Amino acid sequence: MHRFISRYSEVSKTLIKIKDPIVSAKNRTLQLLKAFSTMPPIAKSNHYDYLVIGGGSGGLASARRASSYGAKVGIIEWSGRLGGTCVNVGCVPKKVMFNTASIAEALHDAQQYGFDLPSIPKFNWGFLKQKRDAYIKRLNNIYLNNLVKDDVEYIEGKASFVSKNKLKVERDGQVEEIEAKKILIATGGRPRLPREIPGFELGITSDEFFDLEEQPKKVLVVGTGYIGVELAGIFNTLGTNTYLLTRSDEILRTFDPIIKDTLLEQSKKEGLRVLSHAKVKSLSRDSPTGPIKVDFTSKETNDTVEEFDVVLWAIGRDPNVEELNLENIGVKLNDKGYIISDEYQNSNVEEIYALGDVCGVAQLTPVAIAAGRRLSDRLFGPPKFKSSKLDYDNIPTVVFHGTCGTVGLTEPEARKKFGDENVKTYTSKFVNLYNAMTEQSIFFLIKAIFFL
Amino acid sequence: MHRFISRYSEVSKTLIKIKDPIVSAKNRTLQLLKAFSTMPPIAKSNHYDYLVIGGGSGGLASARRASSYGAKVGIIEWSGRLGGTCVNVGCVPKKVMFNTASIAEALHDAQQYGFDLPSIPKFNWGFLKQKRDAYIKRLNNIYLNNLVKDDVEYIEGKASFVSKNKLKVERDGQVEEIEAKKILIATGGRPRLPREIPGFELGITSDEFFDLEEQPKKVLVVGTGYIGVELAGIFNTLGTNTYLLTRSDEILRTFDPIIKDTLLEQSKKEGLRVLSHAKVKSLSRDSPTGPIKVDFTSKETNDTVEEFDVVLWAIGRDPNVEELNLENIGVKLNDKGYIISDEYQNSNVEEIYALGDVCGVAQLTPVAIAAGRRLSDRLFGPPKFKSSKLDYDNIPTVVFHGTCGTVGLTEPEARKKFGDENVKTYTSKFVNLYNAMTEQSIFFLIKAIFFL
Ligand SMILES: Cc1cc2nc3c(=O)[nH]c(=O)nc-3n(C[C@H](O)[C@H](O)[C@H](O)COP(=O)(O)OP(=O)(O)OC[C@H]3O[C@@H](n4cnc5c(N)ncnc54)[C@H](O)[C@@H]3O)c2cc1C
Ligand SMILES: Cc1cc2nc3c(=O)[nH]c(=O)nc-3n(C[C@H](O)[C@H](O)[C@H](O)COP(=O)(O)OP(=O)(O)OC[C@H]3O[C@@H](n4cnc5c(N)ncnc54)[C@H](O)[C@@H]3O)c2cc1C
Repeated sequence: MHRFISRYSEVSKTLIKIKDPIVSAKNRTLQLLKAFSTMPPIAKSNHYDYLVIGGGSGGLASARRASSYGAKVGIIEWSGRLGGTCVNVGCVPKKVMFNTASIAEALHDAQQYGFDLPSIPKFNWGFLKQKRDAYIKRLNNIYLNNLVKDDVEYIEGKASFVSKNKLKVERDGQVEEIEAKKILIATGGRPRLPREIPGFELGITSDEFFDLEEQPKKVLVVGTGYIGVELAGIFNTLGTNTYLLTRSDEILRTFDPIIKDTLLEQSKKEGLRVLSHAKVKSLSRDSPTGPIKVDFTSKETNDTVEEFDVVLWAIGRDPNVEELNLENIGVKLNDKGYIISDEYQNSNVEEIYALGDVCGVAQLTPVAIAAGRRLSDRLFGPPKFKSSKLDYDNIPTVVFHGTCGTVGLTEPEARKKFGDENVKTYTSKFVNLYNAMTEQSIFFLIKAIFFL
Repeated sequence: MHRFISRYSEVSKTLIKIKDPIVSAKNRTLQLLKAFSTMPPIAKSNHYDYLVIGGGSGGLASARRASSYGAKVGIIEWSGRLGGTCVNVGCVPKKVMFNTASIAEALHDAQQYGFDLPSIPKFNWGFLKQKRDAYIKRLNNIYLNNLVKDDVEYIEGKASFVSKNKLKVERDGQVEEIEAKKILIATGGRPRLPREIPGFELGITSDEFFDLEEQPKKVLVVGTGYIGVELAGIFNTLGTNTYLLTRSDEILRTFDPIIKDTLLEQSKKEGLRVLSHAKVKSLSRDSPTGPIKVDFTSKETNDTVEEFDVVLWAIGRDPNVEELNLENIGVKLNDKGYIISDEYQNSNVEEIYALGDVCGVAQLTPVAIAAGRRLSDRLFGPPKFKSSKLDYDNIPTVVFHGTCGTVGLTEPEARKKFGDENVKTYTSKFVNLYNAMTEQSIFFLIKAIFFL
């Protein structure tokens, strides 16, 4: 009944908004009933064993696994497209761009490998973007088909908590309440914006990187986490005049020195303009389509104003929690705003679970997927899975710039944890076979860190 | 003393060959002594702790490791260049060619990735060969420097056994005998030739593949082990009209079906002309520089004669044992002519060891290297290494065509070993992200084989 009432009142609100003065009381009621009867319900049912908020990497994996054990499962997604960050504005389109940059590198090396190609042919960014978008649409549909196949109900709308076992789902002004025995929060995150900087809204984020229809000629990337470094690398390799701005004199701050130092040096050799000890003061634009004037300071430039076609903020990501009304049920967040969940993905509220980027730990797709599956194994699977959980130690990760990968502790972390005298490192450096034919002095490095 | 005598007699023989009639007896003696004094000895010493025959992957690794423990070590190599098959006519130049083919593939895909490159630019084989040769020379020198650095004596010459602890080393007619407490045979192998086929000598092998100064237009590769398949793939990708001849209807016979079937299908799609159930009857040539006429039969062509620029035999490899005079010490060979060694690399003769390709097991560079190091650890290292040996189970290997890798048993092997009911396989097939942008229907496959 709750569902009916809330949907009714939403339809009614919609109609009231129309404010048609000639609608008589009787007509209004008729119209209301008609509108209501043609609007399909948001959810097919009002009670589920398991409701998952967020149709991204973690949510989809957990929902499908739960359903495979016979649970009645619904997954709520507000964006109109399945796959989450990874598929739509993360790993997948990024890797397409990385592959494109790799092709550009091969074109660059071709002459030295004996092919008659004195310069890199022109690149049509818009053409590739269309193909990339079409590919992602195909993936969205594959994810949808997978839900159908696995008998998981896809519920389109924005979810928020009414009470512990009850969610409100909103879509196009329509509202429904649905209940579930257990609820998973897998709402991921979004790029952070530097709202304190005047004119910040002239900059884009990684989300809008994937909307660019044309290749910008000159770009400033602010932030040197892996996303900033990767996108700057892609721009640079494809021939955009690229500036990368770091607050310190480092990039990839949380990575081992062998990675951050090597990639910094390498990036500079490849023509990336790294601005260190830098800070953006303001952004402005004289005309709506003109270049963006950036007032910034850096060790390399001192105080200066320079024009860019695109400014890209890559200064971190924030969890998608605001819209969830978590205060209605008392789910606790940490000091950075991420949901606190234990090693079993339990939040502090019984039967409310959280995983993936919204928890802020090891923000990677395979991690969200694995955590999602383990959780459903534990909640809905056979007894042998009753203490199933993801081991967050030793998760490997790759930076698609260089390229490099790492697993385990960095050397500084290891020294801190085990003491200098108990840590031994081995490093090997060589020119790899590929670069033996090119004139690039690119090195290949391997480092192993042992704890005694 | 033995050394002196043999060297003396060699110098003497050389001079006798000159047969200068005006040389008086006195003059002759003087000349003899002078010649002797200017000819540097082949080896610096006549007694070693460890002599290694073969300066290839396994020999170099074992010699250097032994020396690191303080043993007096010499390594004997007849070819005048260090590094063995891998560096000179194997892994290394092959991978350069594979990388070249990969560049060609990127050039081929570039248009579909948005680059304005309607066709693959011309490729200059000779230019690349020169660079490749120069690179290999650099590597030869690096290996030489490593020996100097590690205090291993490089002894240039052909080694053969005089007796259990004594070797004869020959170079340019000069002969020396040197002794060692322990001797390692790491002489590797060479490409097999089909001596029974009339005109076989018109064909080349993988060794001479690396001598080709120009790209042939039309090539026949006979044999579908990994070497044949890889070289055919390189030719084909670089634009040579390439035929690959198999006796059966398979390629890569010893690999798991998922590899051999997929690569066969894939190779055909890429334009490689696979001739199955085929047999070469004879080779002939009308003029010394003309095309090679191949009389062969296959399922696809029936009996036919076709002309090729190059015919490449890739029908297997034979161990380098003939020159060793193993009969002098009774080292046993198996029915295929390979040296029999146990899991500790011991031959049947005490203090004579053998490893690498000459033993015919897991013929791969890292295997030879690892076996060589383990052996020296055991023979010359501290007590903790007294039962050091290489575990030959689960050695991973890659085919540089496709590309694919494998480790462990194939499915047929597993079924045979554990029984059908105890083997479970999982296969996953997908279009990889790279090919999502191309029009190629190339699949990526993964197969896991479990034994219960
Ligand atoms: C540029 C970029 C590159 C990346 N590259 C890689 C990479 O190479 N490898 C890798 O492993 N990871 C990569 N990542 C990280 C990866 O994308 C994330 O770790 C992963 O997507 C997290 O999965 P998730 O399920 O936690 O969240 P998401 O995949 O973000 O899914 C959350 C979903 O919840 C929905 N949602 C949010 N709030 C609500 C609500 N109230 N109601 C309904 N729906 C809601 C969102 O629309 C979204 O679809 C990258 C990320 C970015 C931004
Ligand atoms: C075309 C090709 C591609 C290959 N690709 C790969 C690959 O990608 N990866 C991989 O792991 N392996 C590869 N291999 C195999 C690899 O090269 C061998 O497994 C490896 O070289 C074996 O090492 P070895 O020490 O046993 O013999 P070798 O490296 O062959 O060394 C033997 C040495 O002994 C010398 N010698 C022989 N007889 C005497 C004598 N009587 N006196 C003095 N010296 C002598 C030879 O001149 C030679 O230098 C490839 C081989 C070929 C032919």
